[in-house]
Amino acid sequence: MKQKLYTKTFTLTPGECNGQQEMSLSFLVGRIIKVASLHADSWGVGYEKMIANRTAWVLSRLSIEMKRFPAINENYTLETWIEDYNTRFSTRNMAILDSRGEVCGYARTIWLVLDLEARRTAQMEELNELRNYVLDRPCPIEPPTRMRADEGQKIDSFAVRYSDIDLNRHVNSARYVEYLLNQYPFEWFDNNRVARFEIAYVHEARPGVEIDVYRETKTENDHTLELRHDGNTLCRSRIIFTPRTEPIIIPFNG
Amino acid sequence: MKQKLYTKTFTLTPGECNGQQEMSLSFLVGRIIKVASLHADSWGVGYEKMIANRTAWVLSRLSIEMKRFPAINENYTLETWIEDYNTRFSTRNMAILDSRGEVCGYARTIWLVLDLEARRTAQMEELNELRNYVLDRPCPIEPPTRMRADEGQKIDSFAVRYSDIDLNRHVNSARYVEYLLNQYPFEWFDNNRVARFEIAYVHEARPGVEIDVYRETKTENDHTLELRHDGNTLCRSRIIFTPRTEPIIIPFNG
Repeated sequence: MKQKLYTKTFTLTPGECNGQQEMSLSFLVGRIIKVASLHADSWGVGYEKMIANRTAWVLSRLSIEMKRFPAINENYTLETWIEDYNTRFSTRNMAILDSRGEVCGYARTIWLVLDLEARRTAQMEELNELRNYVLDRPCPIEPPTRMRADEGQKIDSFAVRYSDIDLNRHVNSARYVEYLLNQYPFEWFDNNRVARFEIAYVHEARPGVEIDVYRETKTENDHTLELRHDGNTLCRSRIIFTPRTEPIIIPFNG
Repeated sequence: MKQKLYTKTFTLTPGECNGQQEMSLSFLVGRIIKVASLHADSWGVGYEKMIANRTAWVLSRLSIEMKRFPAINENYTLETWIEDYNTRFSTRNMAILDSRGEVCGYARTIWLVLDLEARRTAQMEELNELRNYVLDRPCPIEPPTRMRADEGQKIDSFAVRYSDIDLNRHVNSARYVEYLLNQYPFEWFDNNRVARFEIAYVHEARPGVEIDVYRETKTENDHTLELRHDGNTLCRSRIIFTPRTEPIIIPFNG
């Protein structure tokens, strides 16, 4: 059944939570990728179809705004639909709902087709039928904004390792989110949460590559980060934090 | 319904696979923890019960032997049962099966109760009923072996970061597996796979802590690794690799 709106409910098991007793942003990005894959599968344009042409859907841009993140043992639902499709990219939106149907947040994503041998974007005629699945439903968060860290300071360097790599043999899109959030001390997240997160994936990072992290602090809570290899941009990101208005509840002292 | 044997089937979505187009060991450890949690929940001794006493089940030892890891879009099943329970620990076994019911591998695990405030192991009278759920089914892999890396060389150092931390505010058990496997280059896993993996969690690693990695190469494919902080052992591990007899199939050249 080819549905314009695809819906999937999960339970957030305890082992999937972070130190702040809630879903982490990188885990959410993994779920967004999973649900996008399942929806594409349901239309017959998922992994099997793409890999037969030595191509893959890859995330190109992502913007997320969250009012809150799901908590331990909470059920949560992702609803997803395509806003637009053309031969160069598709735009897919997501709503993240809690077990009462209240909105936790929204995400906007842009997907490209990667030619896995040429390692560049491709166009596929066979995907034209995706136009038929566009759903006219608004996504009430701002579209991607401008992200530059030209004035950024280098704050970290590290090498890409085995566990960072996904089936396309480049760094997993969710792992970039960990690289970025790991630039903040653990305690930062006790007092602040991510209100809006944006990332533009510019170049793939392959195994063994050295990554430099640059950060420009626009305001106390509005930061632009760039990952670079050898001076070339791998991704640009903007993170807007908000101070937690209610302290997190850690159910133990320790 | 309080079942002695608990069974859960999953699909391995593409985004959950590693560069070798299969489930990674750390992902499997996450699934083992998840299924153990669900089984404990079904008995009423899961997260909710434990946290009410400011305690948590924590993995103390793990031994896994795998003939093969599930592949992209494959269904796989974890079967779990308790082999023994006493006031100090419980031993839980797992069988990992593929969609045809063939065995991919087995795991043996030992769990302790952690007092989250005292940060030491605890005993809970209320858990005595677990004795009733012991299942007399063998687990056909070797029990834990001796793991020492006293002659080991220091090969890496890094700090624990935000994304490494779980709800108990220490490093996630599955993340240790990443720390260990990341000591090998990506290409190593194209030619070798983990045949047996053992880990003993000795001390918690808390946010910000510096970790040193020591490795002793007993034979070409039999390695002992230790993570230490300030000279104190955090965990000991033994990894037995086996050369892949059949090359992995990457469905693209790139």
